[in-house]
Amino acid sequence: MTKILCKISYDGTRFSGYQIQPRVRTVQGELEKALAKIHKGTHVEIHGSGRTDKGVHAKAQMAHFESPYNLTTAEWKRAMNSLMPPDIHVNDVVEVPDAFHARFDVVEKEYRYFIWNEREKDVFKQNYVYQFPFALDVGAMKQAGEQLKGTHDFTTFSSAKAAIRGSKVRTLYEVSCHQDGSQIELILRGNGFLYNMVRIIAGTILEVGRSKMGPGDIGYLFDKKDRQLAGDTLPPQALYLWNVQYEKDMFRNS
Amino acid sequence: MTKILCKISYDGTRFSGYQIQPRVRTVQGELEKALAKIHKGTHVEIHGSGRTDKGVHAKAQMAHFESPYNLTTAEWKRAMNSLMPPDIHVNDVVEVPDAFHARFDVVEKEYRYFIWNEREKDVFKQNYVYQFPFALDVGAMKQAGEQLKGTHDFTTFSSAKAAIRGSKVRTLYEVSCHQDGSQIELILRGNGFLYNMVRIIAGTILEVGRSKMGPGDIGYLFDKKDRQLAGDTLPPQALYLWNVQYEKDMFRNS
Repeated sequence: MTKILCKISYDGTRFSGYQIQPRVRTVQGELEKALAKIHKGTHVEIHGSGRTDKGVHAKAQMAHFESPYNLTTAEWKRAMNSLMPPDIHVNDVVEVPDAFHARFDVVEKEYRYFIWNEREKDVFKQNYVYQFPFALDVGAMKQAGEQLKGTHDFTTFSSAKAAIRGSKVRTLYEVSCHQDGSQIELILRGNGFLYNMVRIIAGTILEVGRSKMGPGDIGYLFDKKDRQLAGDTLPPQALYLWNVQYEKDMFRNS
Repeated sequence: MTKILCKISYDGTRFSGYQIQPRVRTVQGELEKALAKIHKGTHVEIHGSGRTDKGVHAKAQMAHFESPYNLTTAEWKRAMNSLMPPDIHVNDVVEVPDAFHARFDVVEKEYRYFIWNEREKDVFKQNYVYQFPFALDVGAMKQAGEQLKGTHDFTTFSSAKAAIRGSKVRTLYEVSCHQDGSQIELILRGNGFLYNMVRIIAGTILEVGRSKMGPGDIGYLFDKKDRQLAGDTLPPQALYLWNVQYEKDMFRNS
């Protein structure tokens, strides 16, 4: 058996999320449908680096599968893309060691969240950004990002619905905020993310941008461990899984 | 009665074109549905500057209607946008003289066609550009544009299916080609456009870019009046109705 890792991009607009579910269109479902075709009807499970929600996009999702076939990486890429719907593309394929796992071996993930800060609605951006028409204090938003960086218990910034066991301590290496004309781009890099964590952090940074909260309040929010105190969960269509990193760059020589 | 002119943008992806038709979703249909709601169920016909096909977008479509109501332009804009689906937006509203007509008074239209010239497919652009992966000679494409400019019989560059009566002579004021990284933008301005004319011109300029035809062949194509000799009709999702001009700028003081 050969273990194959794929770097995949998808437009999340028309998917009910990454993870396979009965009776709805999912990214994993489309990938496994293609792999079954390649494998003459045999089911081949694909293991993603993690889920993305309904409407969330990916510039670089990672997923692995095992196959008895002996194709070159170029042949795998061509075979898979010939069976992909228009909103999924396999950007890169590489052979990985038997011990590799696309989810368990992740050392860092990067997400980006795009706010479009214009009075007038732009119909072409409806599925790709969060359109917010009122003035924002981007300097304060940058400061809030600095307060969110580091190792913290992120209970306040994760969905109260998600009853995950174990620690809610995560480390964020970067929470930065970049303005380019009407676009405000939030970049988050960390060793792991809880359910809805990026969208709740984005909602909290937005509250700071609207001066409903100060950058200095972030420490208090961490202490309280109370989801109710953080900002809203911002909508999914502005969120992009931007990159997934492993111990070494698996695609360096591909 | 007051005559109201609207400047409208729409993402054409999920519409069966501009013009109203039974049992399918159209831009005109959505606009008239909103106007009927505002007018307590009374049908109000809206007159666009012209049709756009299924999948074609508009940055600035123009359309007028008449109403017995006496709202300010800001109130009209707010009322209409509150009833618009997410893929249509009314960008501007102005009151126009009784004699004005959104279609008959057009003096110039501008269309743009976007080619994305990259080896690798970009899933986020699938509904917004034409992705062409092979090398293009943009210099030759610019020269072809120059040959297409001016007053000509555009029979060769219009759909053979469209049995329009009357002259196929039109004047193009601009047919230009602009490269910005991987993006090639075609800008066409003219006093009128025949059915599929922009997409056939784009297909012909693409043939020149691929060196399957030379810029010097354009004159021959005009002479032959034969649709078969021109390039393919390129797909609709890369085409944008960019602007519509009247004798004077109706929105100047709005």
